[in-house]
Amino acid sequence: MIIANQTFTAPVDNQPTTQPVYRVGIFGATGYAGQIAVNLLSHHPNARIAFVTSERAADPGNGDHESLGAIPIYPAADAPLDTIDAAFLCLPNGVSGAVAARAIAAGVRVIDLSADLRLDSAELYKSWYKQDNPAPQLLPAPYGLPEIAGKRAALAGARYVANPGCHVTATLLALYPLAAAHALTADPVIADTKTGVSGAGKTPKLDSMFVEVYGDVKPYNIGHIHRHVPEIEQELHNLQADVGPLIFAPHLIPIDVGLLATVYARLRPGWTLERARELFIEAYQHEPLVDLLPAGQVARIADVAHTNRAVIGLSAGVSSATGDTIIITSAIDNLRKGASSQAVQNFNIMFGLPETTGLL
Amino acid sequence: MIIANQTFTAPVDNQPTTQPVYRVGIFGATGYAGQIAVNLLSHHPNARIAFVTSERAADPGNGDHESLGAIPIYPAADAPLDTIDAAFLCLPNGVSGAVAARAIAAGVRVIDLSADLRLDSAELYKSWYKQDNPAPQLLPAPYGLPEIAGKRAALAGARYVANPGCHVTATLLALYPLAAAHALTADPVIADTKTGVSGAGKTPKLDSMFVEVYGDVKPYNIGHIHRHVPEIEQELHNLQADVGPLIFAPHLIPIDVGLLATVYARLRPGWTLERARELFIEAYQHEPLVDLLPAGQVARIADVAHTNRAVIGLSAGVSSATGDTIIITSAIDNLRKGASSQAVQNFNIMFGLPETTGLL
Amino acid sequence: MIIANQTFTAPVDNQPTTQPVYRVGIFGATGYAGQIAVNLLSHHPNARIAFVTSERAADPGNGDHESLGAIPIYPAADAPLDTIDAAFLCLPNGVSGAVAARAIAAGVRVIDLSADLRLDSAELYKSWYKQDNPAPQLLPAPYGLPEIAGKRAALAGARYVANPGCHVTATLLALYPLAAAHALTADPVIADTKTGVSGAGKTPKLDSMFVEVYGDVKPYNIGHIHRHVPEIEQELHNLQADVGPLIFAPHLIPIDVGLLATVYARLRPGWTLERARELFIEAYQHEPLVDLLPAGQVARIADVAHTNRAVIGLSAGVSSATGDTIIITSAIDNLRKGASSQAVQNFNIMFGLPETTGLL
Amino acid sequence: MIIANQTFTAPVDNQPTTQPVYRVGIFGATGYAGQIAVNLLSHHPNARIAFVTSERAADPGNGDHESLGAIPIYPAADAPLDTIDAAFLCLPNGVSGAVAARAIAAGVRVIDLSADLRLDSAELYKSWYKQDNPAPQLLPAPYGLPEIAGKRAALAGARYVANPGCHVTATLLALYPLAAAHALTADPVIADTKTGVSGAGKTPKLDSMFVEVYGDVKPYNIGHIHRHVPEIEQELHNLQADVGPLIFAPHLIPIDVGLLATVYARLRPGWTLERARELFIEAYQHEPLVDLLPAGQVARIADVAHTNRAVIGLSAGVSSATGDTIIITSAIDNLRKGASSQAVQNFNIMFGLPETTGLL
Repeated sequence: MIIANQTFTAPVDNQPTTQPVYRVGIFGATGYAGQIAVNLLSHHPNARIAFVTSERAADPGNGDHESLGAIPIYPAADAPLDTIDAAFLCLPNGVSGAVAARAIAAGVRVIDLSADLRLDSAELYKSWYKQDNPAPQLLPAPYGLPEIAGKRAALAGARYVANPGCHVTATLLALYPLAAAHALTADPVIADTKTGVSGAGKTPKLDSMFVEVYGDVKPYNIGHIHRHVPEIEQELHNLQADVGPLIFAPHLIPIDVGLLATVYARLRPGWTLERARELFIEAYQHEPLVDLLPAGQVARIADVAHTNRAVIGLSAGVSSATGDTIIITSAIDNLRKGASSQAVQNFNIMFGLPETTGLL
Repeated sequence: MIIANQTFTAPVDNQPTTQPVYRVGIFGATGYAGQIAVNLLSHHPNARIAFVTSERAADPGNGDHESLGAIPIYPAADAPLDTIDAAFLCLPNGVSGAVAARAIAAGVRVIDLSADLRLDSAELYKSWYKQDNPAPQLLPAPYGLPEIAGKRAALAGARYVANPGCHVTATLLALYPLAAAHALTADPVIADTKTGVSGAGKTPKLDSMFVEVYGDVKPYNIGHIHRHVPEIEQELHNLQADVGPLIFAPHLIPIDVGLLATVYARLRPGWTLERARELFIEAYQHEPLVDLLPAGQVARIADVAHTNRAVIGLSAGVSSATGDTIIITSAIDNLRKGASSQAVQNFNIMFGLPETTGLL
Repeated sequence: MIIANQTFTAPVDNQPTTQPVYRVGIFGATGYAGQIAVNLLSHHPNARIAFVTSERAADPGNGDHESLGAIPIYPAADAPLDTIDAAFLCLPNGVSGAVAARAIAAGVRVIDLSADLRLDSAELYKSWYKQDNPAPQLLPAPYGLPEIAGKRAALAGARYVANPGCHVTATLLALYPLAAAHALTADPVIADTKTGVSGAGKTPKLDSMFVEVYGDVKPYNIGHIHRHVPEIEQELHNLQADVGPLIFAPHLIPIDVGLLATVYARLRPGWTLERARELFIEAYQHEPLVDLLPAGQVARIADVAHTNRAVIGLSAGVSSATGDTIIITSAIDNLRKGASSQAVQNFNIMFGLPETTGLL
Repeated sequence: MIIANQTFTAPVDNQPTTQPVYRVGIFGATGYAGQIAVNLLSHHPNARIAFVTSERAADPGNGDHESLGAIPIYPAADAPLDTIDAAFLCLPNGVSGAVAARAIAAGVRVIDLSADLRLDSAELYKSWYKQDNPAPQLLPAPYGLPEIAGKRAALAGARYVANPGCHVTATLLALYPLAAAHALTADPVIADTKTGVSGAGKTPKLDSMFVEVYGDVKPYNIGHIHRHVPEIEQELHNLQADVGPLIFAPHLIPIDVGLLATVYARLRPGWTLERARELFIEAYQHEPLVDLLPAGQVARIADVAHTNRAVIGLSAGVSSATGDTIIITSAIDNLRKGASSQAVQNFNIMFGLPETTGLL
């Protein structure tokens, strides 16, 4: 076929769909997470992309808007909220919450991929993000990790959802079955994560340049200082109040997508690797988007890159000789189960659609 | 110039040198570590490469040997030990020790890069390597990590040395100042390492193929099962008898060279990050090949790839809120300070040369 | 869900399908092209994978066969040809043709991804492949590049097809409209191709090791010596008898998948870039799997990696000042439009299915 | 040792040197070429870095300047020209020429790595660079590719030199022996180059971001439109007035450094590959920084990355069946023989030092 324009990756026409079809708007569609959201939703049988927003792609110089293929592009401020049933917000922290509030007021359901709605407390948000929360009236928001007991039910019919980030999703999936069973000691829990460069976003900066990243492995914001720390601790504490502190150490890896969390935790007396494994089987055996590997196998990024699934492995070492340490490896595609495919999963639940629609 | 043959990377002619000049043989010269050893020693002012060995490059079909440029190539079994003062053994475990014993008997000093001489106990070796130690009469061998107190003195004039491996070097440099001061608790010490593919050697196998590694991060032999575990534990226990068990988790990264160890350890009551930092300053301020980063900075592989140095960073998190956990980042080039440049450093010490000769 | 076994990537269950459903066998299913074929066909609404073959995965030691999920694995020699309607042969040259002949004799339609059926002349095959053609009685075979005029019609209902390779597909798509219009001079046509490492196959060898490829760009078999040369020349000569010789220069690039051909050709007097562009529009405007870029844009591998499409760009330089040279950039995923998705496209045509079924 | 500051890579102290020692200033020291120049000159026995300039690293807010280690950093405008004997200009086109003129007026010899002095004609410069040449009074400048006959002599004692760029160096080294012998036809000469991302500079932009480059091969400015075209054509025409036009097609490759030019040219009747090879032997046999490979071998980037040499291979295909096409592969490190080590080579020649001082 003849390609008319390459500046925006034109999605294929929506497939012939079954009823119902919900109209969606994708805000921040030209960022890396936004691009995946556009791709997933353009193939989703129960969604039709009514518009996307992009400050880059839209022409702010006049009131008009450009369109590409059948999909119009607006600046976010001009998006016609009355034409959509649901909004996917792939917008920066501090901006996203305000758009969410506006959309909700217009009767649009919101899947917010920013951090603005993730922390239950606006004070905690301010202390970590160094700015006022733009939508404190929406807190606490339903938290979009449906594999955690109780979350899925809360999402059904919800008007909005705080979609967790990539490090958080991988780390919580690794720890959830243990924390839910109160199997963890009060010792520090260590999450050493390895992440692809797309997690740093699409805005040009030296640290994300090819030459700077190539051949390197670089830790960043390690210890107890990364903004994902309070989010992970919040959810862990909800499950097991006396869990230890989180030591969180992300590492930038020269790959484009993918995230691996290697999580080290200590088990209370009486817990063996085998008993721990039972918890994971119980938690994930019926989850369509979380795969538990056979005993002894480790998760790797190649298992999950460009897929919508998480993969979890349990390893080794639970014995008195090793301090009853369990190692959980947890891998996701940071832009998918760590962002946009999880957003679609939450969309499906909110609208009563089969949970994996458009994802398998 | 006109290149006559490309099958073996011809080293440049030895530089005009100062006396004395020691004749060296490099065994296993076509492997990745061997190639670096050839490169370093061909530029070393006090060394002259008398021969190299390579089962691949040498022709085993006749008694003769091929030569390339000025350097003859032999199969290891035919190497003329009477023509060298020192032997660098870049040979497989189980083979290397026997060659070492033969060379020592011939009056040749030996730098052994294999694991054969690293464990003080032949029994321990057998339990981890599943074979008899080929040279138990040489145990315990001087251990070639000169930055550890006492090791340097033991190396001066030694007839042979066990050169430590890459994971071990990075991990021990991260923990040594703390263990020497008995600052560690009995909790598990966690070393999460990230390593380039050259560490897996040059023998073709599926796991080292480009397509298999590209875009992936893969943990392997995690827990308490990797062969480097007993070596690290041995050296740590020599420094602090009541140190906790080691949890060791290597990860394969899609880069060619470089190794980063992110080490998590807990400090005894009374130790702060500042006090811990004093230990590292004390240990490394006069070390020419170990760089301690400013407070708060992290080591990264880009700092050390293709260099002969180690870089160490101390981070964060020592407080009651984080279980007094310290994070040490330790980076080396796995083929250099993790193998061949460390071997040259040890060679320099053994022969009374300035320690950094040929390395800066 | 609980993963039972990771040695073979289990395809998802076939989707609910529409009639008809053809039973297919995939030979050589564990190679890189084979894996893509398994993936594509496991999602194909009109195909059901009856079995796969793999000398690696199958146990040759006993008469039995292993199975994974619902799909049994056989050694190729034991494959039950009577259970399938079509065979996809991802087998080595020299082996594949014999299997093809056997399958055809059993009434199975064959899509052969090897080179065995591509050259019309068994003598030419022998001179380039240094072995006898294993199935000369099948020559000439219908050639599976349906975008070339006449090929599509010949494939409809064909019993077997020679599926072209990746370099050939990219190069022929770049030159076909020009050759078909007899627009090329008798000067040499130059194809400088850049290809990912998966094109070298999955068998471990030094040249495909991560460390050997990383950071390198390497030409190989350049000039008039690569085995793809006679195949490209055969098809070009069929279109324009007086076309010039092919100069073919492949380069290995450190990426996993993708192929870019940069093709330089000279146009006969009277042909302008604009007129040449009309030929490409005419040839490809209705082709669902070949995209022609806007004037002046170049094809790149990022456009096509992990997709089933080819992308073509026309550039520059047709003037007397530049010797009337046209540059055509042509990009494909070497494992898809260069191998397995093209095989599925041919399968669709042979069986009268819509041509893009399972591919968009 | 203790690292005080990591924002600027501190060079090692200058080696103990032999007389004479020339004081040099490096302008634009924090760019990729500038960093290599700093590294090379800090190890050069006849050079002492008096200062570097960097708009980024210097503090423009006050009149003072920061220093790092022993080397002060200035904004370029404040550089004390009276303290140096030679200036290396790693500055942007359009800026560099003016600094060159100022330095020359101050009695400083200049090695200009920008394009400002490369074209002999200011008019030609303006038509390709779309700006006035900032120093037309310096044209024509001695051209810093000493391997071309006559250039070396012109450089000895020269006050300034136009240092050629990376694509130009690789392409001219590939064609020089043929053009000098008038062996080329008037047909187009095609240079298909593959280059690492560092060639695009250090300024953050989307096209140089890791995620954009990873997994891609992208042609850019192909045809007769890249700014390097007039420079290559100028030098070729000086050698052979009736050489054909240049078709130039650079490709961006996901590696950090290195450049491979695959050059296709046609030989006049009577020239064979063997006779052509004699020309290359004649031209390069005594060149210390250009290596000619054995017959049939191809140059690859792995041969030259992180080295100061060029490698040239001659291949195939000179016969009437292939239009007397010769393929020359020419590889360099784009930041070294394509920029900064060539600048040091020219510095050595200008100051009467052995040409490879500090480079082997």
